[in-house]
Amino acid sequence: MLDYTQLDALSAVLKTGSFDGAAGALNITQSAVSQRIKALENRVGAVLILRGQPCTATPAGARLAAHADAVRLMEAGLLDSAPAENTPLRLAANADSLATWMLPALAETDGFLFDLVIDDQDHSANWLRSGEVAAAVTGHPGPVQGCDSHALGALRYYATASPEFVERHFSKGVTAEALSRAPALTFNRKDRLQRDWATGMAGTPVTLPTHHFASSQGFIEAASLGMGWGMNPEPLLRDALARGALCKLTETPLDTPLYWQVARYAAGPLAPLTRAIKAAARASLIQEL
Amino acid sequence: MLDYTQLDALSAVLKTGSFDGAAGALNITQSAVSQRIKALENRVGAVLILRGQPCTATPAGARLAAHADAVRLMEAGLLDSAPAENTPLRLAANADSLATWMLPALAETDGFLFDLVIDDQDHSANWLRSGEVAAAVTGHPGPVQGCDSHALGALRYYATASPEFVERHFSKGVTAEALSRAPALTFNRKDRLQRDWATGMAGTPVTLPTHHFASSQGFIEAASLGMGWGMNPEPLLRDALARGALCKLTETPLDTPLYWQVARYAAGPLAPLTRAIKAAARASLIQEL
Repeated sequence: MLDYTQLDALSAVLKTGSFDGAAGALNITQSAVSQRIKALENRVGAVLILRGQPCTATPAGARLAAHADAVRLMEAGLLDSAPAENTPLRLAANADSLATWMLPALAETDGFLFDLVIDDQDHSANWLRSGEVAAAVTGHPGPVQGCDSHALGALRYYATASPEFVERHFSKGVTAEALSRAPALTFNRKDRLQRDWATGMAGTPVTLPTHHFASSQGFIEAASLGMGWGMNPEPLLRDALARGALCKLTETPLDTPLYWQVARYAAGPLAPLTRAIKAAARASLIQEL
Repeated sequence: MLDYTQLDALSAVLKTGSFDGAAGALNITQSAVSQRIKALENRVGAVLILRGQPCTATPAGARLAAHADAVRLMEAGLLDSAPAENTPLRLAANADSLATWMLPALAETDGFLFDLVIDDQDHSANWLRSGEVAAAVTGHPGPVQGCDSHALGALRYYATASPEFVERHFSKGVTAEALSRAPALTFNRKDRLQRDWATGMAGTPVTLPTHHFASSQGFIEAASLGMGWGMNPEPLLRDALARGALCKLTETPLDTPLYWQVARYAAGPLAPLTRAIKAAARASLIQEL
């Protein structure tokens, strides 16, 4: 077995960003923190912390810290107790869920300090597979091995742009020709929504000229300012559509099914969160496809 | 000299995410794209592209692609011409600038497809140093070597939380004791705002229990929902303060000076953007500290 006082020291250094901060948090001396980290690094044969401002985890360090978090959650499940106040909980979710329906579910679930890894819905299941998160909102129906999967419904997207932009670029319809010239908005290299929708509209793959920036609300503002067109989630669109700042390129929505997947070791302690997530999703996502 | 038709192929694969897409964009066959990439990889002696869905750059590939973008911008400067329509332009900026004052400046500057690297204001200058971006909004007064630096003013932050949260955690004042128990909101591991402000208030370093998620608007919503307190930028706070959804922990602001740094090779073609950035900053940021 690993030495869990050493793992606590690792978690504390990563949480506070420094050996000094970890010493304060654990109420031990800084040299005791250093000794525990060094002993753990010798034990596993790898550097675990990149010393810097702040200190950050190496890949091996991140795996061990995630393991320590998992063990803490499992202990809570084992003892059938609520997690201790301020239990760290690492989740993965897509940015648009965070921007639209998810935060109220986190806010009403007590006891956790949430650490949200934001990744594309097509990729967030990988964080579960690697064991780095205990649960994820993902586009992958799964279940990922060792996880329970709960269908949440679908987040609805519409291709939208400012009325002037539509007039300028799409007055002759949403054609392959028009799509190959009108600047699009893309969240990051993993974001396939615009490309997939454009391919569906054009009936052939189209190379989109595109801006890139990773901000859900930034998409709405940039589209309203006439920078480009993008796939925007319906809950974020309502105001801008009502005000006439944005309009839809077509009435055809793109529905993105989402799933809540929870590692089984964490299912017990996370049951209240799972209930809150499912209720929030029921209220905000499309339930019939 | 490098072969710039090969570099164009590299840029096109990274832009479109596939060899197939690059072939379409360059109007050549897919096997011609493959040959150019292979020849370039042989020439520089490194793998440049991780083949996948989508294709992504290796570190060496990212450096070469940034070089190709830089050369395109330099050519525009050399010929004293406006950049070609849809010239790719990679910039670094902090998320709070993107969320508050920056997008209108980008929207009014024609000719570019913006690729925004979002990083903490204390770190965005590193993207300039590594040559991966042509300009950056940064907290570093600089100038970074080879760059011009323009002072933009300061983004003003207030520590804010919901009235219930303040009543529950800070009824006896913003003390070290209270700060060590009240959950904070932290953007990511690089975000020092909360820690710096708390240290200033307590007069001693405090280990903050904290949630982590990287969303400017998410901070406002999470604070309104009572999840924690966080340093929020004044332009995003106005509505929530006026509605009473949030209140300030103290009236003491934290002003974060920002600078626009532009690589000198790009200063000419980016002059219209620099003017727009400075005008937008003058309208939104605190000009006297």
